[in-house]
Amino acid sequence: MSVQHMKVTKRIDPKYQNEAVLLVKCPDKPGIVAVLSEFLHTFDANIIESSQYSTNPENGTFFIRLAYYCDQLADKAEQMEKNFAGIARAFDMHYEFHYRAQTKRAAIFVSKEPHCLLELLWEYQNGDLNMDIGVVISNYEDSRDMVEALGIPFYYIPANKDIREQVEAQQIALMEEFEIDVLILARYMQILTPNFVKHFENRIINIHHSFLPAFIGADPYARAFARGVKLIGATSHYVTNDLDEGPIIEQDVERVDHRSDVKELRKIGSKIERRVLAKAVKWHVENRILVEGNKTIVFH
Amino acid sequence: MSVQHMKVTKRIDPKYQNEAVLLVKCPDKPGIVAVLSEFLHTFDANIIESSQYSTNPENGTFFIRLAYYCDQLADKAEQMEKNFAGIARAFDMHYEFHYRAQTKRAAIFVSKEPHCLLELLWEYQNGDLNMDIGVVISNYEDSRDMVEALGIPFYYIPANKDIREQVEAQQIALMEEFEIDVLILARYMQILTPNFVKHFENRIINIHHSFLPAFIGADPYARAFARGVKLIGATSHYVTNDLDEGPIIEQDVERVDHRSDVKELRKIGSKIERRVLAKAVKWHVENRILVEGNKTIVFH
Amino acid sequence: MSVQHMKVTKRIDPKYQNEAVLLVKCPDKPGIVAVLSEFLHTFDANIIESSQYSTNPENGTFFIRLAYYCDQLADKAEQMEKNFAGIARAFDMHYEFHYRAQTKRAAIFVSKEPHCLLELLWEYQNGDLNMDIGVVISNYEDSRDMVEALGIPFYYIPANKDIREQVEAQQIALMEEFEIDVLILARYMQILTPNFVKHFENRIINIHHSFLPAFIGADPYARAFARGVKLIGATSHYVTNDLDEGPIIEQDVERVDHRSDVKELRKIGSKIERRVLAKAVKWHVENRILVEGNKTIVFH
Amino acid sequence: MSVQHMKVTKRIDPKYQNEAVLLVKCPDKPGIVAVLSEFLHTFDANIIESSQYSTNPENGTFFIRLAYYCDQLADKAEQMEKNFAGIARAFDMHYEFHYRAQTKRAAIFVSKEPHCLLELLWEYQNGDLNMDIGVVISNYEDSRDMVEALGIPFYYIPANKDIREQVEAQQIALMEEFEIDVLILARYMQILTPNFVKHFENRIINIHHSFLPAFIGADPYARAFARGVKLIGATSHYVTNDLDEGPIIEQDVERVDHRSDVKELRKIGSKIERRVLAKAVKWHVENRILVEGNKTIVFH
Repeated sequence: MSVQHMKVTKRIDPKYQNEAVLLVKCPDKPGIVAVLSEFLHTFDANIIESSQYSTNPENGTFFIRLAYYCDQLADKAEQMEKNFAGIARAFDMHYEFHYRAQTKRAAIFVSKEPHCLLELLWEYQNGDLNMDIGVVISNYEDSRDMVEALGIPFYYIPANKDIREQVEAQQIALMEEFEIDVLILARYMQILTPNFVKHFENRIINIHHSFLPAFIGADPYARAFARGVKLIGATSHYVTNDLDEGPIIEQDVERVDHRSDVKELRKIGSKIERRVLAKAVKWHVENRILVEGNKTIVFH
Repeated sequence: MSVQHMKVTKRIDPKYQNEAVLLVKCPDKPGIVAVLSEFLHTFDANIIESSQYSTNPENGTFFIRLAYYCDQLADKAEQMEKNFAGIARAFDMHYEFHYRAQTKRAAIFVSKEPHCLLELLWEYQNGDLNMDIGVVISNYEDSRDMVEALGIPFYYIPANKDIREQVEAQQIALMEEFEIDVLILARYMQILTPNFVKHFENRIINIHHSFLPAFIGADPYARAFARGVKLIGATSHYVTNDLDEGPIIEQDVERVDHRSDVKELRKIGSKIERRVLAKAVKWHVENRILVEGNKTIVFH
Repeated sequence: MSVQHMKVTKRIDPKYQNEAVLLVKCPDKPGIVAVLSEFLHTFDANIIESSQYSTNPENGTFFIRLAYYCDQLADKAEQMEKNFAGIARAFDMHYEFHYRAQTKRAAIFVSKEPHCLLELLWEYQNGDLNMDIGVVISNYEDSRDMVEALGIPFYYIPANKDIREQVEAQQIALMEEFEIDVLILARYMQILTPNFVKHFENRIINIHHSFLPAFIGADPYARAFARGVKLIGATSHYVTNDLDEGPIIEQDVERVDHRSDVKELRKIGSKIERRVLAKAVKWHVENRILVEGNKTIVFH
Repeated sequence: MSVQHMKVTKRIDPKYQNEAVLLVKCPDKPGIVAVLSEFLHTFDANIIESSQYSTNPENGTFFIRLAYYCDQLADKAEQMEKNFAGIARAFDMHYEFHYRAQTKRAAIFVSKEPHCLLELLWEYQNGDLNMDIGVVISNYEDSRDMVEALGIPFYYIPANKDIREQVEAQQIALMEEFEIDVLILARYMQILTPNFVKHFENRIINIHHSFLPAFIGADPYARAFARGVKLIGATSHYVTNDLDEGPIIEQDVERVDHRSDVKELRKIGSKIERRVLAKAVKWHVENRILVEGNKTIVFH
């Protein structure tokens, strides 16, 4: 593998050039919504979607997602962000402006099983995911053809725990080269080091093949079979340094029974995995998620 | 039956004396949220929950539900409503103020099958429904004991299509006597006249025992069996003068198969009916529903 | 509490006097079904339902449930069982004959929260559970009225870990007095001793308020909240001496999100618990369940 | 389009050469199971799966599916079928022998939307569908590449109601040429004539994009939107001459709400359609389905 591409620049989607999302997290107090909506109104921005949540109206934490439309947003954005900085200081806000025209770029990591990758490629082709796929990285060659057929760069990087640091250095270089915003572990069966995770905090989305916190770790379908559960599931979560313990974004289950052997559980499970991961990715790239401690606020 | 009770007065629940909901529907235009949140902020009201929806950001209809907390709300409410009238005129708003302390009072109509009534009584006893049950009316005596055991007045009013007007006159008198805010048809198997429906527009909640619009009308389980469907359902909706055509509030289904005869479908269905109706009632009394044409906006 | 009732005798339901179920578990080999169906045919018994399962057609374990109708079953049953003993020896079978007319008798154990008890009482009144409720035992007085209103004996037996043996001695005496076939722990918040469990192997059904094996042990809703799961569940299982590790009979889940606090999770969960437990009990008393190691075969 | 291929012969899968399924439908009477299992035992066939159903044990219709394993089945099959003919006469049976090694061959018809075709291709590649895909026929060219990439013949046959008979003649010729066992309408948006349907009775599987019998006919998502339903669904059924009225094989639904416009309903619906159709096809090719009047018995 060699990394010799030209520096890429993000795709700007002019269709959405006047749309943005403002995500805010701060200590709750009266008047926040008034201040935020007044701020947007000052710039003639119209709120398209608004969702808020407070852990406790008295002295809790306040979260809000405001999607807005604003004529000539490109011309106004800098001034808006400048003005907003003052508000943010006054209310002790964590905040993020996301401009819809600046299409997010994803990297997909995959090992041998392609079902989650395929689902993402399919949703992407359909226009159901508001993102570009910058690169696919795999420790197997199996998925190369289907990826390259779509004009997406595919990198085969063999991986195992003995060469982990060297592998991750290559991967990080690719993430930088392709200006990657979000990493999707689409059944990538390698552990990531704390150093790697730190590079991409709350930007690595994993799919785990169980309804966490049941069956943390390896081979959850075999363990589900051994336990005789009547439901199997899948969980999409942000990756942290505690294995399978990161903030959960989405989960789902399917009914099984005594007749399902481990192979059958894997088949049923693969369908859950692909839809759960696709939903989590969709919500992430639509800037619907705020992380608070080890939990997510997902604004639908 | 005789109607000789003293005039009842609504229960005020002091626990919620500073909480209210403002529901608004109006033509969409920029700045509405700013105006509304500024309005609430002026009275030192803190927005606890906010949900909005627009049929179309350009020239559609805008809907919002604002739940707020306001110290000394009782003292301020009159002035707030007065001030709001001006805003409402300017934006051509339909609006409703609902004060949480003014517990809504429901009448439950039931025929022979008690499962939906029982579910509501159970949720009510549990404190899961933010309402009082003012009266239960039935064209059968069967439910009297379970209702009166809870200290709720029970009226047996035989009904059939030949005496419909006279029956409805009695029922309307009871609704007025008990100051009823919402009527719940908990498997009440009588058709209501347009006159009756008009009295309680968007305040009569029915449960229909199919996933509408499939199996409109009588005996849906027998027809579901005859059709060989693999799912049966239930639908809760506001009653209009078009049978089973009113705005749908909630629906749910369960899986069935060839082994389920009509009796079994009824059993499975009764469990769907009771949970679907209970949800619709809960959302109504929490003022989460706005009706637009033949559809509902339900703000969760 | 005193135990002075007359010895009770089981209710015989003449409506079902010619119906029975034969449950069989044995090493798989060719011809078993032929032998079993020939056996029944010899007695002019007609198979109404038949379900079978084999862990592995080659050298696995074979399970079958045969529900049959047989004219004058009462006169033939003894001879049938006698003849069957020979077949069972030849095939090394575990087998059970269950006569539908011999209505099973349940004991329900409950602590403070009544929702699971209420659901069972309601299904029982409806005729949806093919069992009698012989006795309800609680370490709280709360449920006495609703139980006695149905003519079911209610025993208040305070319980805590210091008096566990003495409490269980009383309970076992009651189980014997009332000729109890199945014990239902309908949110009974006391640990049972190995001695007690041994008395009622595969006949104690518990409801645990999580989707096991997640959140084994105390306070699963609080832990589900802390973990930020997007689904909560309930699990019904046979009780063994390993806490929450017995064979799972049924599980179900509901979707939740960040807005649900622990109190709300408990409310949502209580609805899952009651329907999951009711299903498990129904299948047990219909003799649909065979236990194999730590798993159940449930023949629907 | 020209039809000049060599006559194809069905693929024999030696892995399954000793496995078969016997499907039987007949008037219910005592002893049928004994006769059938004795019959199989005579040939040293071991029953792997057995499922039965009776509309009514007294004088109803009896259905059974017996999956069996039989050493040297190829040598015995002819004699078995010969012997069975006598049993079938005695019990007035409709019966079908299906040999698992004789892989069924499907034709897939598709119009513009590829999601259902893609799902089938994917399941097929995964080995999840026990069938071969003999040919794909479309009135659009869009899917050609993805079909031919898998080595499956693709025929573009423009279609509209004016040339229906001529189109169907071509299609029937292809069905014969490719020895097609089952036709799958994977969102094929053309009406079939009674003549065509008669050729393939109970062998044409359609996916309809609503939970039938709601929204029969054209554009169900637009009508679901207009009606304001809270669930949308899909239905797979055998095609008869009554539009969308054939025996239902499988249905499923997803929750939607007021925020979903028609485009969003189509996206959500497409995911339901693909999984519902894939299940129906799987059950058909595993010979799990018996048709009785306008209903299906599906033995899982």
